[in-house]
Amino acid sequence: MPEFRRDPVTGRWVIVAPDRAARPVDFQPLQRRKAPGECPFCSGRESETPREIYSVRAEDSAPDSPGWQVRVVPNKYPALVLESQSDAAHCDLFQAQAGVGAHEVIIESPEHLASTSQLSEEAVQDVLKTCALRLAALRCDDRLRYGLIFKNAGAQAGATLEHIHSQLIALPMLPPAVCEELQGTENYRQLHGSCVFCDLIARELDSDVRVLFDDDQFVAICPYASRFPYETWILPKAHSSQFEDLADGDFGPLARILRSVIQSMEDRLDECAYNYLIHTAPFDIGENEYYHWHVEVFPRVAMTAGFEWGTGCYINPVAPEQAAKRLRRE
Amino acid sequence: MPEFRRDPVTGRWVIVAPDRAARPVDFQPLQRRKAPGECPFCSGRESETPREIYSVRAEDSAPDSPGWQVRVVPNKYPALVLESQSDAAHCDLFQAQAGVGAHEVIIESPEHLASTSQLSEEAVQDVLKTCALRLAALRCDDRLRYGLIFKNAGAQAGATLEHIHSQLIALPMLPPAVCEELQGTENYRQLHGSCVFCDLIARELDSDVRVLFDDDQFVAICPYASRFPYETWILPKAHSSQFEDLADGDFGPLARILRSVIQSMEDRLDECAYNYLIHTAPFDIGENEYYHWHVEVFPRVAMTAGFEWGTGCYINPVAPEQAAKRLRRE
Repeated sequence: MPEFRRDPVTGRWVIVAPDRAARPVDFQPLQRRKAPGECPFCSGRESETPREIYSVRAEDSAPDSPGWQVRVVPNKYPALVLESQSDAAHCDLFQAQAGVGAHEVIIESPEHLASTSQLSEEAVQDVLKTCALRLAALRCDDRLRYGLIFKNAGAQAGATLEHIHSQLIALPMLPPAVCEELQGTENYRQLHGSCVFCDLIARELDSDVRVLFDDDQFVAICPYASRFPYETWILPKAHSSQFEDLADGDFGPLARILRSVIQSMEDRLDECAYNYLIHTAPFDIGENEYYHWHVEVFPRVAMTAGFEWGTGCYINPVAPEQAAKRLRRE
Repeated sequence: MPEFRRDPVTGRWVIVAPDRAARPVDFQPLQRRKAPGECPFCSGRESETPREIYSVRAEDSAPDSPGWQVRVVPNKYPALVLESQSDAAHCDLFQAQAGVGAHEVIIESPEHLASTSQLSEEAVQDVLKTCALRLAALRCDDRLRYGLIFKNAGAQAGATLEHIHSQLIALPMLPPAVCEELQGTENYRQLHGSCVFCDLIARELDSDVRVLFDDDQFVAICPYASRFPYETWILPKAHSSQFEDLADGDFGPLARILRSVIQSMEDRLDECAYNYLIHTAPFDIGENEYYHWHVEVFPRVAMTAGFEWGTGCYINPVAPEQAAKRLRRE
């Protein structure tokens, strides 16, 4: 069973999930792939996944059978499970707790596609709506405090299966990366009386040197202190803390800009593996005046290495202004 | 020129170093390698690197000519430089500062070898002594607060050149990963009156489930809350805060255990890319009762992915007890 373990030096929590080592792998070594027709995420092979939690499917089709466009299933090799019992020995140095949480897979197409750019805008919209619905459902569970939607596309981005999918992991604690953002936004609000992301958006639109795309609802920028080459953030222009509360009419524009960003990365950069993730407010904080939800997209053109692990700092060899210049449609 | 940029939301510092994008790359794409005889780190091609800062070489040989065993040169494409001027515009949202620091390369063999396991124990000892000497030299520079030694071996570990080398980056600030460790060790010392690493070593040797190797001077363990599969720490048994103050007679045993750990990873795991790094006390803190220097070794058998970037948490699919069982010599 998965469990959380606390590092006795730093206090950092790690999820130790030995069952995950058993999962099938398309990508290790890089050339060994599942033959077509062996992919457990393709339409017609629904029996190879756990039973579906939710789907977007034709009205006359039955659950766990073909006829779906988007399908959500529990991860067969979960990093966390809602009913976890840990028998870990506790002592002052070695603290563990049960790996309670949720780990779902959002299968984004019945066909064996690999990237968001291969989906139609309508399909991306269905995927994003599905993600929002699942987050909204999980935030009703009192055991859970945070839900992260993320996508690993390509072996270099950590994907183990090629078939296009996202994942949702819901945690019983606030993760450090989100705590940092919350702390930063609260401090800024106290000092300046406004949302730092709102102020950033205004400044970026004004100077226009790091803006990729923008429309009435959203803006895509290469952030000033990008950790990775071509790192891109997509933000709603109107202040909002929770992605899962996005108005129905805004999923279309979000799908359009997300698809444009990924298409642009694939067109302009040699390497097309990428990650994206959605940072939304914690379940128990909800809508507020300081936190602003956003999507972070990372094409995997450089490897993180010893320096990054050893320091927690990042060296970015591409200035964000250059990155924006290369990625924007001109 | 490289510069530090501060993320306006989290306060995280990032080094933006556009000149590094120009550096030669053995590994991108994975198959494209420099032909033998084109490697700038091989003996006979000393003119292709900046002039050497230090070397272990035959007495009758001249600097920047053959006859060396270990050679230290400034990184040709530095992430930081000691004489940096930044002309970055400052404002409340966008803070930058000059990328002052040092970035050196320790070339570990005149021959075109790729891994520490291919070096003799004596050669590894020379490398480690060289690292200690360079750290001791840089800590006299008042502009610098921390020095990190790290090695990226293999493309999957972020190495851009195959020829065996380590790097030293010295920073004008304490990096977050080291601050976390310092904070944790100080807290522990206040609560328990002892060094958390010393207590850990005693506990691990006692239970013996996560110990790989040990001798009179050092122990290698898979830590309780390992972030990565087969993560291994090497620690001196006697309390000591600064690697660079290691007694002359202890470099041999350190070389032996480091080589054994890496050899074991290469023998027992499919993938042989790895990183290691040396965590020593900050320059301006020095020897103290709570911080305990150590080496962290990470074989790259799993990719970090969206979840790790999005949360700052880690999912480790291999329990450290299983990792130790697989890696220890039995």
